[in-house]
Amino acid sequence: MRNFNALLEEQWKQSRFLCVGLDPDLSKLPSHITGSAEEKILTFNREIIDATKDVVCAYKPNSAFYEAFGEEGWRALKATCEYIHATAPDVAIILDAKRGDIGNTNEGYIRMAFDILAVDAITVQPYMGGEALAPFLARKEKGIIVLCRTSNPGAHEFQNKVVDGELLYVTVAKHVRDTWNEHGNCALVVGATAPHELEKVRELVPQMPLLIPGIGAQGGDLEATVRAGKRAMIIAVSRAVIYASSGTDFADAARNQARVYDSAIRAALVQ
Amino acid sequence: MRNFNALLEEQWKQSRFLCVGLDPDLSKLPSHITGSAEEKILTFNREIIDATKDVVCAYKPNSAFYEAFGEEGWRALKATCEYIHATAPDVAIILDAKRGDIGNTNEGYIRMAFDILAVDAITVQPYMGGEALAPFLARKEKGIIVLCRTSNPGAHEFQNKVVDGELLYVTVAKHVRDTWNEHGNCALVVGATAPHELEKVRELVPQMPLLIPGIGAQGGDLEATVRAGKRAMIIAVSRAVIYASSGTDFADAARNQARVYDSAIRAALVQ
Repeated sequence: MRNFNALLEEQWKQSRFLCVGLDPDLSKLPSHITGSAEEKILTFNREIIDATKDVVCAYKPNSAFYEAFGEEGWRALKATCEYIHATAPDVAIILDAKRGDIGNTNEGYIRMAFDILAVDAITVQPYMGGEALAPFLARKEKGIIVLCRTSNPGAHEFQNKVVDGELLYVTVAKHVRDTWNEHGNCALVVGATAPHELEKVRELVPQMPLLIPGIGAQGGDLEATVRAGKRAMIIAVSRAVIYASSGTDFADAARNQARVYDSAIRAALVQ
Repeated sequence: MRNFNALLEEQWKQSRFLCVGLDPDLSKLPSHITGSAEEKILTFNREIIDATKDVVCAYKPNSAFYEAFGEEGWRALKATCEYIHATAPDVAIILDAKRGDIGNTNEGYIRMAFDILAVDAITVQPYMGGEALAPFLARKEKGIIVLCRTSNPGAHEFQNKVVDGELLYVTVAKHVRDTWNEHGNCALVVGATAPHELEKVRELVPQMPLLIPGIGAQGGDLEATVRAGKRAMIIAVSRAVIYASSGTDFADAARNQARVYDSAIRAALVQ
């Protein structure tokens, strides 16, 4: 059976830490890609996957970009996941869905993500607590990636509030480490736009995988990120790779850009 | 143009405060309903809607129950929303999706909820802050219903942590009240299972609509809830109404149970 941690370990052994976000935006797709929204998204994603699959440790489709097209979007998302399984079976698939509901209701999201899409990991919201997320946490072979310190400019509004003498994101990281991670299947989202917070979280969870968005269009510092991330890291870049060119060379441009990030990560690791 | 607050005001004038959760679970549907998952869900929902539409102020489909069936589920969700618009145009539709991502990504969820499904309101997660939710908050005619104190047993894990001398859910309520609610389109989720917290939130936001789950299967006290809610309330009941009977009389049983809750709410209001 596929196992998220095992897939990651294998990729990390080969020094692959880059995760490409598959976030299709019709207004940014190359104009030579035509057809229905579903066809355009799938054509685009397939070419991006073909061009980058030997450079990445994971793909991360964000469900919002697919839900924007309703039923068509869901078919494109499912076909994208199937395409990754068929052509890049050693690459992990992370559904960036930021879900979270009360316990029994989460079963619906679990069926969607793990049974229908067959992804290896999902991002979840911490606000309702570990009891609510128990059905996710029970899926030992999957990665349950909890939002800890997000990459958006306003993330500090609650996440950097002082709670019982420590910051809320620190409290979240400690709860995940000490009580939610019974099966060793938890990971944390920490943005590259918050390098100090990233260092702090890494101190708290020396071994836990960190999903790190914020490099590329969001402006995070790659070298500082790699130094803080210390190998157990999934460095997510979306727009800066997939929209590297809007011409017929978009897939080659995405590959080149992915290799630039990959080289920069490797260089920072050996410094 | 439809407006969530206006729809609610009209319903509240007629003393309708009950919201029925449309959360289809195939294992609980009456056995005489046959067909594909999509057909079963839609048949069930239509009969529930026909039987309860003059008793409720809102319907609340929870997206997890539909996503569990992938593409079929999304078609059933869309058809359910269309059916409510066609047959009960004065009843508000709340998509209980508990979404939340960084700003530009939320546009995908907004298109899904407000453009494709044409719902009147959506539930959202506060953890990433108001800056991230800005695209939701900008939709003046829609209801943006923020998780504040949820109804699940483990809600206290973070929500009742002390933050700068007050509880986190209080901080969330104050932020929503003081900075997120510029367009008067915010509401808060507060569970009936936490009556003290409900009273506290009502003190903080005397006029803001509260979406109150936790009555029925989750065991919240209806009288205490109504006393604390003070009219600007949407009292959500799902399983206790829609699964009142698993026989061919399920729609009548749902209507009867909805009327029992409706009567109890009205009685508690005049006490």
